Amino acid sequence: MPSALVILSPGFEEVEAITVIDLLRRASIKVTTAGLTGTLITGSHDISVTADAELSKVNHTNFDILILPGGQPGTNNMKANPTILKWIQERHSKKQLIGAICAAPTVLHAAGITDNMKLTSYPAEKKTFTKSNYSEDNVVMDNHIITSRGVGTAIDFSLAIIAKLINQSTADDIKSKIVYKSVGC
Amino acid sequence: MPSALVILSPGFEEVEAITVIDLLRRASIKVTTAGLTGTLITGSHDISVTADAELSKVNHTNFDILILPGGQPGTNNMKANPTILKWIQERHSKKQLIGAICAAPTVLHAAGITDNMKLTSYPAEKKTFTKSNYSEDNVVMDNHIITSRGVGTAIDFSLAIIAKLINQSTADDIKSKIVYKSVGC
Repeated sequence: MPSALVILSPGFEEVEAITVIDLLRRASIKVTTAGLTGTLITGSHDISVTADAELSKVNHTNFDILILPGGQPGTNNMKANPTILKWIQERHSKKQLIGAICAAPTVLHAAGITDNMKLTSYPAEKKTFTKSNYSEDNVVMDNHIITSRGVGTAIDFSLAIIAKLINQSTADDIKSKIVYKSVGC
Repeated sequence: MPSALVILSPGFEEVEAITVIDLLRRASIKVTTAGLTGTLITGSHDISVTADAELSKVNHTNFDILILPGGQPGTNNMKANPTILKWIQERHSKKQLIGAICAAPTVLHAAGITDNMKLTSYPAEKKTFTKSNYSEDNVVMDNHIITSRGVGTAIDFSLAIIAKLINQSTADDIKSKIVYKSVGC
């Protein structure tokens, strides 16, 4: 069974985090949520979620993908966390999967891995990526790095991760079951 | 400031609940979440959320809209709750707004208000609504009742509620800010 580690940082974007957790679990991917500052984390719209574990007690190498939801100040809190930056660098050097959505691709930039990378982000963060190959697609994959744009693309992002970790037909099946018609519009 | 009461029932569908809470708060609607069995409620994909209040301590008449997320067993737990059924009947008789998504329109049916009503629901629940005017649109509005289909239509549902409680331009502005392109595709 593939596995995913989703970071819950104080001020995370709730829809972006919950959508990826929910849809990956529908696909029978083993999802663990890791709280940056404990196990009760409040998002950017004042919704508090119980994390499965504290970040400090988790080993990212045990997971097939590391996923960073966006939102503020959640993204800035991740950028300021040396453990997360180190994990991103370690995974990138080993070509292990990382997903980041909305403002969270700027955490990849802070870790120093985005030069010449094909990626996307929340539109207002485009200015960060002058040395990258910036795309405005809903979801962009550059080898082991999957990026996406915001709350409105969170389902597309989740389905792309499912397709990568399992297969396209599982993603398509979930897309149908949740009555989703957006991708490609 | 308009206000919304969102029910969190054990086994609620997390994306459907979190999307409406998040987007309505972006629109400066005062959202209160009410937990059916306390203030720590676990959804259908094992995500635990802290509710703002216990249902038993809330007065639905203080809110402009009552919103029922779907999911199972969340929907069956709402159907089995006499308070929720009574609230639905009271609001319907006074033409006060109710929103229900996915399986949750079947709670409206259990409350006895759906005969001759134009509505939608999760596709598999269509069989419940033989006496209604069933639609397969992403969001359906019949006077004060707003219904929708599932996780994949949760943003459309939330934007329709914002348009109803505030105005269309506020909904359109949020739709743009979250990078959402789906409605009408």
